[in-house]
Formats: sequence, C-alpha cells, structure tokens
Amino acid sequence: MSVLVVGSVALDSVETPFGTADRVVGGSANYFAAAASLFGNVNVVGVVGEDYPMEQLSFLEGRGVDFSGVTTAPGESFFWAGRYSYDLNNRDTLETRLGVFAEFDPVIPEAFRDARLVFLGNIDPTLQLRVLDQVEAPGLVACDTMNFWIEGRRHQLLELLGRVDVVLLNDAEARQLSGEHNLLHAARWIQDKGVRYVVIKKGEHGAILYGPDWMFFAPGYPLEEVFDPTGAGDSFAGGFMGSLAGESSLDRSALRRAMIYGSATGSYAVERFSVERFRELTPLEVARRVEEFREMTTFEHELEAF
Amino acid sequence: MSVLVVGSVALDSVETPFGTADRVVGGSANYFAAAASLFGNVNVVGVVGEDYPMEQLSFLEGRGVDFSGVTTAPGESFFWAGRYSYDLNNRDTLETRLGVFAEFDPVIPEAFRDARLVFLGNIDPTLQLRVLDQVEAPGLVACDTMNFWIEGRRHQLLELLGRVDVVLLNDAEARQLSGEHNLLHAARWIQDKGVRYVVIKKGEHGAILYGPDWMFFAPGYPLEEVFDPTGAGDSFAGGFMGSLAGESSLDRSALRRAMIYGSATGSYAVERFSVERFRELTPLEVARRVEEFREMTTFEHELEAF
Repeated sequence: MSVLVVGSVALDSVETPFGTADRVVGGSANYFAAAASLFGNVNVVGVVGEDYPMEQLSFLEGRGVDFSGVTTAPGESFFWAGRYSYDLNNRDTLETRLGVFAEFDPVIPEAFRDARLVFLGNIDPTLQLRVLDQVEAPGLVACDTMNFWIEGRRHQLLELLGRVDVVLLNDAEARQLSGEHNLLHAARWIQDKGVRYVVIKKGEHGAILYGPDWMFFAPGYPLEEVFDPTGAGDSFAGGFMGSLAGESSLDRSALRRAMIYGSATGSYAVERFSVERFRELTPLEVARRVEEFREMTTFEHELEAF
Repeated sequence: MSVLVVGSVALDSVETPFGTADRVVGGSANYFAAAASLFGNVNVVGVVGEDYPMEQLSFLEGRGVDFSGVTTAPGESFFWAGRYSYDLNNRDTLETRLGVFAEFDPVIPEAFRDARLVFLGNIDPTLQLRVLDQVEAPGLVACDTMNFWIEGRRHQLLELLGRVDVVLLNDAEARQLSGEHNLLHAARWIQDKGVRYVVIKKGEHGAILYGPDWMFFAPGYPLEEVFDPTGAGDSFAGGFMGSLAGESSLDRSALRRAMIYGSATGSYAVERFSVERFRELTPLEVARRVEEFREMTTFEHELEAF
C-alpha cells in the first residue's frame, strides 16, 4: 500500500558544529519519503525549480519513491539556509528563498488520489486543505505544521484539525497552538478540535502519542553524536506513516509501533547531512533499533505483589 | 530490610502559582523517608533545631520510619524559602538559613551501621564520605549532589564517586560535573570515575539509568497538575531505594523496576505541598501507577517480520 506525501522538495545549506553542507537536497517531502520508503512505496507531490538536482534522489526512486507528482516550474527551488548552536538545541535561519514554492498549488495526480495514507507536510494549511479535497477517503491522514502557520493561518489550521486523524508537532508548537503549558492539557485542547491522535515531539526527550483514552511514550534514542538535526521531524513522520502502511489494521497496537518506528528513522536521519543516512540504511537496521527501544523501556512487575 | 538515609530535615516556605506553604516540613531526608517507607523500614540520620515540629512526622513513624538518628541541637532548623515560576520550570531561592545544619557532622547510630542500602542525600561530599566510613559493607550505596558541591567540593565529590554504586543527579548537574553536553557522554564520564550506575533525572521528561552496558528509560508521568515540585528528586530516590529493599537480588531487573517505582513516588510527591501526598498514599496506588507506566511504554514488535 502506498503513502502519499505533499510537502517541500528543497535545497538546504546547513552549518553545524561538525561541518557545513551547501545546497544539499532537503525539505519535508524528501525526508519523509526517504524514511517511509524503507517500508513500502511513497508518492510525492511538490514543486521544484529548474535548478533542482533530481538525480540526487534517484536512490529513492530505486526504493519505490514516485516523484512524478513533483512538477518543475520556471525559477529557483525553495532554498533554506540555517546555522545550529554548539549544542544543536537552537538554530538560526540565515536565509529563506521560497522561489517556485511561493506559487505552489498542489495538484494530486489521478493515480495518487486513492491513497490510503496521506501525510500533509509543513505547508500553508490552506494548501493542506486543498490536498484533502483531492484525495478519496483515505484511511488515515496526518499533518505537520509550524509556528508561522499557527500565528498566520490559525483559522485554516483549526479547520484542518477537524479533518485529519493525526497531528504531529513539537512541544513548543503544541503550547503555542493551545495556549496551554502543560503538554497533557495542550494535547487535550488540540483533540477537542477534532483530531483523534496528537503526537508531540520533544527532540532528545522523545515523543508522546495522545490517543482518545490512552498515551504512549517513545524515548529519544541515545545517540553518541547528533550530526545535523535537520529533517528529524519529517523522518519521524516517514517512519510513523511508513510502518502504518504495512499494518493490516490501524489500531492502538499499530500506532504504538509506529511511534517507535518513527523514533528509529528520526534518530538515523540526524547521523548525517541531508538524507545521506538513508542511502545505505536497511529495514533490518531499523528493526534492530526498534528492538533497542524495547530493551530500553521494558521492565517486569507483578501488581499482585502488593 | 531497612534503608538508611542521611540528609536534611528542614523547614520550607514555598510559593507556587497555586498557593503558598509556610514553614512546612521538608528536606531531602524527609521526602526520601516518606517515599521509601511505602516499601519498608527507613532509618534517618540528620539534625534539627529546637524549633522543629517533629510531631508533624509522626505519621511516618507509624509507617516504620525511625528518627532516632535525628539529633536536636541548640538553635534554628535548616530553613529554605523559594518561589517557582508560573510554568514551575524555574525557581528562585528567596532565603536559606543553615541554622544547626551548618555544624552537622553525621553520627550513624550503632543500630543503623549494618544497613544494606544507604542513601546519601544532598549534603557536603565531605560529610557523605564520613557516613561511608561509619557503615559496614552496605550492599548498595546511592548519593545525590547539586551544583553547589560540584563547584565547591569537586575533589571530594570525585572521591565519593569512586565509593558509591549509584549517583542520582539531574541533567544540568550531570552536564556541569562532566563538562559534556551529550547526556550519554556525561554518564560515561561519571561512570569512569568509578560509579556503576548513573541516574539522570530530567523532570517532566523522565529519567535515564545508565548501567555498565545497558540503559533504561523511565518517562515522566503525565500529571494534570504539578502543584509543588519541591522534593520530587528525593521522593524519586526514596521509591528507587525503597523498592530495592524489597528485592532479593540487586540485579538489572530490580534496578529497572526501581526506576519506575522512583518515577511513581516522585510523581505523587508533586501533587501537594510538603510530604502531604504521602500521608494517605498506599503501596497499591504506587503499584497501579507503575502499571500505568508499563501501559505507556509497551509495544509489540516482531523482529522476524524483516
């Protein structure tokens, strides 16, 4: 079963304490596709300029990523440049050039419209809604967002929350959106807007899935070195949605597994610049890291002892 | 099997966004004893002034806490006053009066010297070392510390690390002590000083146990309201050590359970001012919260699927 992702296909220039990368492939759709394609086929919808090095993504095409929904428009590709602090906890945006992305109006190719799983990457909620108008009865829709849309497209974002099944956002975004500092309250506030599952990502502190009447905690994977945090969230989403594509039922058990698969792919993404880590990464390596997550959280306890 | 704790028996005045508490019982030894006594007997060594309201601790005596090692000296009891920020993530110390604590030189009563489990609360490492000189071959010794000692008693603290089995400290303290930002590196640095297990507490983000060749993650319990964070760390230590007192073997399995018991007792502590939440708390309630922790972290996964 294939997964549809709509998002940015971009070029990034990144400075970290460990080095710099100049105009490498990035963007939410690429990171998502790199992670999700470890589990099955991925269909990408986006836009690039005539300058975009699509050939650098050919390794993903070889793994079942279909870029035929990525149109080429006259002009420059979306470009982002940023610099991370020494501890990687903060980043400054040095430059953002929307280029052809400024006029992006996603058109879902006919062949992609029956997607069972849809991921709406971090783009204008107005466009995310337009994508939903074009797909036919997906089994599960997840979306991402960011501070810029929470502030500037609040009304459209709230409408979107009533039409998706899962929202993935980080702790600062959840607090900003809800006005609640306590994450449990923030999640409940968001759920009240109509979304069933809220995934709050906390970087090195892991991620929490808030369901209707249950919660699930995934710890952050203890990496020796984080090389470049760019794309961690989208790679998480890719592992999350990709693993769900392989499930026969999108039930509680599948969603819990998806949280750990997402944590695993997100943790791999930050080991190198760009989507480089996914070049050689195998499903077995991901599964082994998932086993490590289990080993790090399992304990035995007899309630009857009391 | 009883547990020995040496630490402060204090009076606290606390302001939180939810209210104020004036000169209530506090201090590391009290929080520790309140939590650990849910599991078995606890022997306390400390010092108070003539003004100390020991009668407020009588409910703990009824649960097997022996305060006969707490001496009364002429003068005032240790007093701390603090104010928490609106989000409870920061606190300002308004006043600290050491009182009789300034001259504290712990003497372990003869009857307490064969303790199998010893917790050295957050006091001067010089005194923590003197306690170790007085106990006979304990099975496991754990210690706490803080920024003040890391800065001012570094040499003594490093000596102490070579003589304890477990150190419990928060993420900022682990980074300060080791000079390493990455917590995995910080833990390895501390272990190199001779301590087998390093427990790094991250507040709402949970706690991590770093063992010789394994790790264990305990999530933060998702509280609706944190009323007063004072004593959370010592209540964690109390649940951790208290649960170990009931184990036949201090092995990996027992230590993992201890992390969750500590997380549970720490999460209860912050629901009220002072040690008030422990007044009615039962071992069964703690065990039920432990079950909730399991429910929040368990997932099914077949490595063979790949």
